Amino acid sequence: MKVEAHEKDLIEAGDNGLCRLTIRSPYLIFLGDTREIVDAKTGSGLVQWCPEKVAGQLRFDGCPVDLGIPDLSIDQARAQGVKSIVIGVAPTGGTISRRWIATLVQAAAAGLDVVSGSHRRLEEFPELVAAAKSSGARLVNVRTPADHLPVATGEKRSGRRLLTVGTDCAIGKKYSALSITQCMKARGISTSFRATGQTGIMIAGQGVPIDTVVADFVAGAAEVLSPANADDHWDIIEGQGSLFNPSYAGVSLGLLHGSQPDAIVVCHDPTREVIDTARHLPLPSVAECIDLHLRCARLTNPDVRCVGVSVNTSGLDAERRVSYLADLSAELGLPCIDPIQDGCDAIVDRVFAEFGREG
Amino acid sequence: MKVEAHEKDLIEAGDNGLCRLTIRSPYLIFLGDTREIVDAKTGSGLVQWCPEKVAGQLRFDGCPVDLGIPDLSIDQARAQGVKSIVIGVAPTGGTISRRWIATLVQAAAAGLDVVSGSHRRLEEFPELVAAAKSSGARLVNVRTPADHLPVATGEKRSGRRLLTVGTDCAIGKKYSALSITQCMKARGISTSFRATGQTGIMIAGQGVPIDTVVADFVAGAAEVLSPANADDHWDIIEGQGSLFNPSYAGVSLGLLHGSQPDAIVVCHDPTREVIDTARHLPLPSVAECIDLHLRCARLTNPDVRCVGVSVNTSGLDAERRVSYLADLSAELGLPCIDPIQDGCDAIVDRVFAEFGREG
Repeated sequence: MKVEAHEKDLIEAGDNGLCRLTIRSPYLIFLGDTREIVDAKTGSGLVQWCPEKVAGQLRFDGCPVDLGIPDLSIDQARAQGVKSIVIGVAPTGGTISRRWIATLVQAAAAGLDVVSGSHRRLEEFPELVAAAKSSGARLVNVRTPADHLPVATGEKRSGRRLLTVGTDCAIGKKYSALSITQCMKARGISTSFRATGQTGIMIAGQGVPIDTVVADFVAGAAEVLSPANADDHWDIIEGQGSLFNPSYAGVSLGLLHGSQPDAIVVCHDPTREVIDTARHLPLPSVAECIDLHLRCARLTNPDVRCVGVSVNTSGLDAERRVSYLADLSAELGLPCIDPIQDGCDAIVDRVFAEFGREG
Repeated sequence: MKVEAHEKDLIEAGDNGLCRLTIRSPYLIFLGDTREIVDAKTGSGLVQWCPEKVAGQLRFDGCPVDLGIPDLSIDQARAQGVKSIVIGVAPTGGTISRRWIATLVQAAAAGLDVVSGSHRRLEEFPELVAAAKSSGARLVNVRTPADHLPVATGEKRSGRRLLTVGTDCAIGKKYSALSITQCMKARGISTSFRATGQTGIMIAGQGVPIDTVVADFVAGAAEVLSPANADDHWDIIEGQGSLFNPSYAGVSLGLLHGSQPDAIVVCHDPTREVIDTARHLPLPSVAECIDLHLRCARLTNPDVRCVGVSVNTSGLDAERRVSYLADLSAELGLPCIDPIQDGCDAIVDRVFAEFGREG
């Protein structure tokens, strides 16, 4: 109850200007004319991680992609209480197709918020602006950060926090955070997933797109994202970038300092040999990654600990997978799991062992 | 000659969208109705560090602050070829006073670019926009970063780079970088000061206000700021924030990775006991500061070295000053100087010893 009250506060704070980005559910997932399921990753992520928020999908005639949820027209969606139409597809280039606009205009005119994770802003389409204005619907660009983010104070907040970090970017930090959140909730722990990227924000219904924040305010945005909370509440924070990725490490460090995590989980892919956006650089070892993250994180939380490693083992055969995880676990003295294959119970066990069940 | 050609390229690249922020000299420094010399820090910094760019000052009747340079009317300034009127004062709050506008409008109408480091944008004054439009003058907000900054590649560039870093923010990084630049130039080394803050950009006539860049592009902005250059050319880069300041460390790390410095100089104040914006945190030791910076900097330049410590000793008495610097130098095996009292020759000697006179 405490937590729900708190989350309501956060949303209302949003209306006052801080952490403004909130998305109203239930959602109608817009798939349009998508041809490939891989382009509908956002939509399938929503169905996987927040099915309770998803009322249905909207597909154009002949669209072969199916998320396995009810097909709804805009009128049907409205009758069922849907609040937002969420663009669930990101074709190559991540743009908004002109072919989608008539349908999105119809949704906006019917009072549905239109939610997009595209680089292209919804306001670039005048007919969409006009329709939203006529009905009072909102155009929500998930890549646009809240206004009036503060500079970080570095002051300790109540509540517990776990941040997923990585040996590189695009290595499972969102998936791991969601999986840990699910596991902790299933075990009766008061837990919130705190989103820092587009899809994560759509799943959580709120968050801060941390890599689009002006540099001076990144750590402050992270403080707003996971505010003071009950002592036994856990925020599970979606990491971004990597301290070892020279393109994005500043984002990662600001997020680390602002999150002031009690616990970190390192995400890793043993088949990746070089940094994703800087292929002349070797991936660091997991041990090195843990060591640098703990050293930097101690600035805002001297008691920070690593509670496990989340490994994407999809590139290893079954036998190698088992031996790799066992060897890594023996080397580090930490639970090392693949969240897809093994779930995150071993990591959550470690959290309880380190911090107690009551935080 | 090579370097001048290069710098011209950079300015032209600016006109194509990259690193757009350039300021045309000579300058007329606007002091207006300022009452206190401490409010005219920007103006006095320009007179100290780039006197060759400064034609004169413009003061309202009765203004008691005097930078010791000729008083010029706008007509006189224009007759002398002045290109920009630079607001050289920052009263508490850093705003643009309405009392200044009539004079700034007159300058813009006469074809002078108007240059401001304020948080408030010049475009907020419609009469200024109209005057600039009528004459073709530019309104230059030094806090506004260039458009189209790239994501960093982390790829090694030619040329040599030195970055000033610090145990905290506001601890002498700009002063030290300017002092080292001056010292290297005096010794015949091809050197550019690379500015990352408002006053630094006015002094250099170009730069990137790094802490106002969107987080994803900070390291990329640093790459643009100090582009590939002749092997024997040194860029001396103005640091921002500190890896040990939890409000701004992300900016510092992005700047460190993008600058890929060959050499770092640590700036320190021995009388400061706590972090400026987070007073519950102790200042790190200089040794710890060197160690963490070198560890992080090796990601983009494995051969990075610390070449000295620049200490603000104004808070120590004469005897203590000498013993403090001697003890620190013995502890670290590095030249430790106060740039105001001692100049930076000892640090430049170390640069030559480490990297050779030809870079």
